[in-house]
Amino acid sequence: MPDTALDRRHLLKSAAAGAALLAPSSAFARSGDETAVRDAIGRGHDAALARLREWIALPSIAAEDRDMDKGADHMVAMLKDAGFQRAEKVPTRGHPGVFATLDAGAKRTLGVYFMYDVKQFDPAEWSSPPLEGRMVDKPGLGRVLVGRGATNQKGPQATFLAALHAMRAAGRKLPVNLVLVAEGEEEIASPNFRDIVTRPEIAARLSKTVGVFMPMNNQNAAGAVTINLGAKGALELELVASSAAWGRGPARDIHSSLKAIIDSPAWRLVQALQTLVSPDGNTVTVDGWHENVRPLSARQKALIAADARATDEEAEKRALGVARWVDDLPWLAVNERLAAAPTANIQGLVAGYTGPGGKTILPHRAVAKMDFRMVPDQTRAECAAKLKAHLAKRGFGDVEVKVTGGYDPTETAEDSMLIRGQVATYQQLGITPTMNPRLAGSWPGSVFTSAPLSLPAGHFGLGHGGGAHAPDEFMLIEPASSKAAGLEEATRSYVEFLYMIAAIKA
Amino acid sequence: MPDTALDRRHLLKSAAAGAALLAPSSAFARSGDETAVRDAIGRGHDAALARLREWIALPSIAAEDRDMDKGADHMVAMLKDAGFQRAEKVPTRGHPGVFATLDAGAKRTLGVYFMYDVKQFDPAEWSSPPLEGRMVDKPGLGRVLVGRGATNQKGPQATFLAALHAMRAAGRKLPVNLVLVAEGEEEIASPNFRDIVTRPEIAARLSKTVGVFMPMNNQNAAGAVTINLGAKGALELELVASSAAWGRGPARDIHSSLKAIIDSPAWRLVQALQTLVSPDGNTVTVDGWHENVRPLSARQKALIAADARATDEEAEKRALGVARWVDDLPWLAVNERLAAAPTANIQGLVAGYTGPGGKTILPHRAVAKMDFRMVPDQTRAECAAKLKAHLAKRGFGDVEVKVTGGYDPTETAEDSMLIRGQVATYQQLGITPTMNPRLAGSWPGSVFTSAPLSLPAGHFGLGHGGGAHAPDEFMLIEPASSKAAGLEEATRSYVEFLYMIAAIKA
Repeated sequence: MPDTALDRRHLLKSAAAGAALLAPSSAFARSGDETAVRDAIGRGHDAALARLREWIALPSIAAEDRDMDKGADHMVAMLKDAGFQRAEKVPTRGHPGVFATLDAGAKRTLGVYFMYDVKQFDPAEWSSPPLEGRMVDKPGLGRVLVGRGATNQKGPQATFLAALHAMRAAGRKLPVNLVLVAEGEEEIASPNFRDIVTRPEIAARLSKTVGVFMPMNNQNAAGAVTINLGAKGALELELVASSAAWGRGPARDIHSSLKAIIDSPAWRLVQALQTLVSPDGNTVTVDGWHENVRPLSARQKALIAADARATDEEAEKRALGVARWVDDLPWLAVNERLAAAPTANIQGLVAGYTGPGGKTILPHRAVAKMDFRMVPDQTRAECAAKLKAHLAKRGFGDVEVKVTGGYDPTETAEDSMLIRGQVATYQQLGITPTMNPRLAGSWPGSVFTSAPLSLPAGHFGLGHGGGAHAPDEFMLIEPASSKAAGLEEATRSYVEFLYMIAAIKA
Repeated sequence: MPDTALDRRHLLKSAAAGAALLAPSSAFARSGDETAVRDAIGRGHDAALARLREWIALPSIAAEDRDMDKGADHMVAMLKDAGFQRAEKVPTRGHPGVFATLDAGAKRTLGVYFMYDVKQFDPAEWSSPPLEGRMVDKPGLGRVLVGRGATNQKGPQATFLAALHAMRAAGRKLPVNLVLVAEGEEEIASPNFRDIVTRPEIAARLSKTVGVFMPMNNQNAAGAVTINLGAKGALELELVASSAAWGRGPARDIHSSLKAIIDSPAWRLVQALQTLVSPDGNTVTVDGWHENVRPLSARQKALIAADARATDEEAEKRALGVARWVDDLPWLAVNERLAAAPTANIQGLVAGYTGPGGKTILPHRAVAKMDFRMVPDQTRAECAAKLKAHLAKRGFGDVEVKVTGGYDPTETAEDSMLIRGQVATYQQLGITPTMNPRLAGSWPGSVFTSAPLSLPAGHFGLGHGGGAHAPDEFMLIEPASSKAAGLEEATRSYVEFLYMIAAIKA
């Protein structure tokens, strides 16, 4: 999943953002199509739900090499069914992507990013079958559909397709053309997505769009929306100290009494690790790490300050289970640091005996699973190279840097047509979105926002869900006690967005 | 198990040690009992094997709380059956010990240390059932008995009991009295054994012995024997960094993007760890750690030098899978360091996500499983206290030191009757033992060698086995291609030892 959804769960937004503006009548309303399309959405409700449930029943999981080809074929079929004249699989060195176009004869073209894969799941942990898409009453929300992919990302994507079906059922042409790229490897950090997007024909078509958006359940349970203008990059890797690479230490785990005469890769890992951060663990100290860090702009700081004021620090601390922030920073500084600070994090440590109690061994190998988060203008390639150089310079050249995934940082201008269109659409729908200059999490947006495409990119959509990557993943279908949109209202938000993009001033 | 057996597997001894001396006729031979007892050992072969197999069929495992009371009862019954007039369970705060006495009306009394517990096992990993005690042909050795406890420690202990049975069957009184203490918690680091041994009545009886020995398969496959005059102590512990104790960091694992604003217990553990050792990981740098380290004596150095000359460095490197020793030390220095150097070892690192690939979390807890090895005159209590003070002084007072087990260092004088008796017995049996001043591994010998008892203590016995703590543990019963003793010859070694202890000059 894009880390966006995870962050949103962690960084609670105040419900104040939900206050409606007095918006001018919308492009959709002015089009004269509104009543017909609204009716079509209502009539299409059951078909849309059935389409989503059918998709959930076919889980494509790249990490398990499960139903990848079938998933891509199904994606192609769904797109054709929704009105794309052209939809085809794109081979990669890994699992296939999908490229599709819908020519509505419109002046403007909008880019769309889909993923057809889902996260692994263990049915034993679910309270209803993860592939069934069962409708369940969820206290505090309403009727929700439970299933793997319900919110990450099949639910909102199917909702966007429902909008296209409704337009066609109402006999209306889309107000914009669409160019869609999809991948089946989002959950394994999109290793081949840049290759898909930069294929000459696809890049050429994408370059003519006003930007690229991914459908998403962007509302929290109170109905509030945050627009992320960018996201940190991520560099995921394993730091591996081993006897084999070091030329010291034992070839396999041996009795710990031999530590007296044999070197320890576990100690070597500890020593290498401690050179990477300040003693408090909060500042990256890799040589040259901060060279390309661009400070926050005055506008970014202003947006962060507004967001900090609208958010309850104590509620946030409770939700995260923390007593103190790093350096005991005040709330405004915490919010700035979340957006501005590059980080080095240890996700996991694995060496030797990891079971209960002890075992008198000297391990031959020790691993730190790490992720570094980068900000503009750092890049993933730059940071990986600097990390390796830093270790080598300190005599740790044998400590292997095994990069396993990641993305460059991404940014989209607040005054881009894509973002202005999002803001205007949300306002039409009665929501004043909070603007977040930079998400602390990561998503593959840089594939679009960096050269050669250099397009605006972001997420859009009403709707609410939860449990991404977890058991009992759900999407809200019929709200009862929640102010977030249900399936039909979310579908309308996509229609509204398409009309807004067609109409907004360039 | 006593770490002794593990070390012996790692530190190969040259077969040169097996050369026979021209020994004077033995006390056993002079007693006139030899023929009768030899015959009785031969007649008792099947019964001795059956006794061992019956014992193996009843695995007492303290870590699993499995058959502990039954195991102690069985131990008591076996001892009575072997001629101990008194044998009884000794309650502890954990699992019961056993105390037994055999009064032969002799002048001298020998102490004996038994364990009735065995290490955990997984039958799926065994090539024959671990509780069956099946006889199997083992290439390079001969007929071996396979089963959990076969060599650690039921096999050699049952062999010692077979010696007592043979003496009785031959109508002979033992030449020494016996005082035996046994525990069922050896495999969990003997947490209550000191309490057993220092009970007033038991301590009083033990204090009248010439020393305490544990039966053991002391021969390598070539038949060579090493006598260990002492062993390092061990302090096993977990170093735990946690948000709960620190008052910083998350209460549970949270999304790793939040590292920007939330402290990391994993980094804290790394920072605390790196203060404990020199940058190469080979010297303990805990404040005051070396204050009570007694340097090797000239005699200890001479013994080590002799041992180093008799051992093949390249074969040792191959067996351990190491290319270089610490600091690229030469072979003699390696051998001295193995005996003389206190160590700090990381057995395992466990934090956050430990599965395949990565997972973008910031862990709330990080653990280093460690063992420190100590030399005389360091003590376990001293070292635990120094470690805590060292951490506290550097601001790491929240990093918890959870001591899970260990022993003080132990030493027995080379000129003690127990050791002289061992040397003389091995020589009678045609073996010149190598003397090892200090084993790098650990065993609970300090319970006997330290105050209040201050007795000599060590291991004795011919015989060969392998696979302690591992699948397919075995004891050699009928040697074919090995020069190590089989069951009957090993049984005779214990008889020879008893006569030697009775006869040797005080």
